[in-house]
Amino acid sequence: MPQNTKLTIATILFEDFETLDVFGPIEVFGRLPDHFTPEFYSIAGGVVTSAHRVPVVTRQLSELSVNDYVLFIPGGIGTRSLVNDGEFTDKVAKLADKAKYIVTVCTGSVLFSKTLRLDGKRATSNKRAFAWAIKESPRVDWIKKSRWVRDGNIYTSSGVSAGIDMALGFISDLLGHDVAMKESTLIEYDWKDDPGWDPFAELH
Amino acid sequence: MPQNTKLTIATILFEDFETLDVFGPIEVFGRLPDHFTPEFYSIAGGVVTSAHRVPVVTRQLSELSVNDYVLFIPGGIGTRSLVNDGEFTDKVAKLADKAKYIVTVCTGSVLFSKTLRLDGKRATSNKRAFAWAIKESPRVDWIKKSRWVRDGNIYTSSGVSAGIDMALGFISDLLGHDVAMKESTLIEYDWKDDPGWDPFAELH
Repeated sequence: MPQNTKLTIATILFEDFETLDVFGPIEVFGRLPDHFTPEFYSIAGGVVTSAHRVPVVTRQLSELSVNDYVLFIPGGIGTRSLVNDGEFTDKVAKLADKAKYIVTVCTGSVLFSKTLRLDGKRATSNKRAFAWAIKESPRVDWIKKSRWVRDGNIYTSSGVSAGIDMALGFISDLLGHDVAMKESTLIEYDWKDDPGWDPFAELH
Repeated sequence: MPQNTKLTIATILFEDFETLDVFGPIEVFGRLPDHFTPEFYSIAGGVVTSAHRVPVVTRQLSELSVNDYVLFIPGGIGTRSLVNDGEFTDKVAKLADKAKYIVTVCTGSVLFSKTLRLDGKRATSNKRAFAWAIKESPRVDWIKKSRWVRDGNIYTSSGVSAGIDMALGFISDLLGHDVAMKESTLIEYDWKDDPGWDPFAELH
């Protein structure tokens, strides 16, 4: 992957998104402004509030017009109703088909799986929501013990803080392991660069 | 500390705050809504944007009127100019004097030190900004090798992701170690519950 990568991080927000699902990866991507430009979108635009009362200003999804973007789908309690919102998942499917990469954190993978774009692919999700993931989309090859999973241009992560590890893993794949490891020390984060490290798979 | 603790987390935002400094702890506090209510303030109110392009809606600082609050001061590149803004640090000093607790992440401790409320007290900060911390406020007892430091009602943490560990440590002190450890596993975070764990002190 060329070092001159320049990608928009097209973050899809919705009411009651999980705060750290979004802002862990955004910290990681946002610290490399030569390569990544974080942007925040929602269906209607305007202020969208996380499950922990963080009000974030978003643009309307229809304003997403760049060519080279990463579609970033977080999880959170807000996904529980959105998985049944066909209009929403149709829009996500169309965006996914034009995205260079798709990254999801936590139950964002379950939400994304409703586009059917994960069928037959390997993916992971929040360990406490795993039975729900399987029930919603049984044709996905759900991998329980993995901090994050890559299948082609799709990255999915385990719960909440695992998004940080996945974002660093994504950067490692794109820009090199040294870049990712250096960034993890700058944010004083104990990055496990092995996606197989996942003690939480057995706890829940 | 009684289990019926109910505290507002009065988060002070400013342009170019560090994204994860804020939203790591907000995730941790916000998941315990029976005990903590996150709120976001800035001097002028309105939208404040992080160093990584996250636009957050804030209230004006003068609207902070609750009695039981934690004053939460993040770090980030925005602190570099604010340490010289006497009007800002005067306002922070007044808020600190009425706060139940003060928590800072990363260079938030350097900004807070300009109120002189850290003089003679133990504190820590971002490991790469440590020389700057000492230069700005030499009368603080700066502790380099510590993930976070408590001195009375003041908690300071190391850089960026260390805020998550500190917030869990704060919850451990207030509500018990079990509550903090349970929360760390729910967010699939590898919490080091010993504040002495700090490999980054030697790296920078």
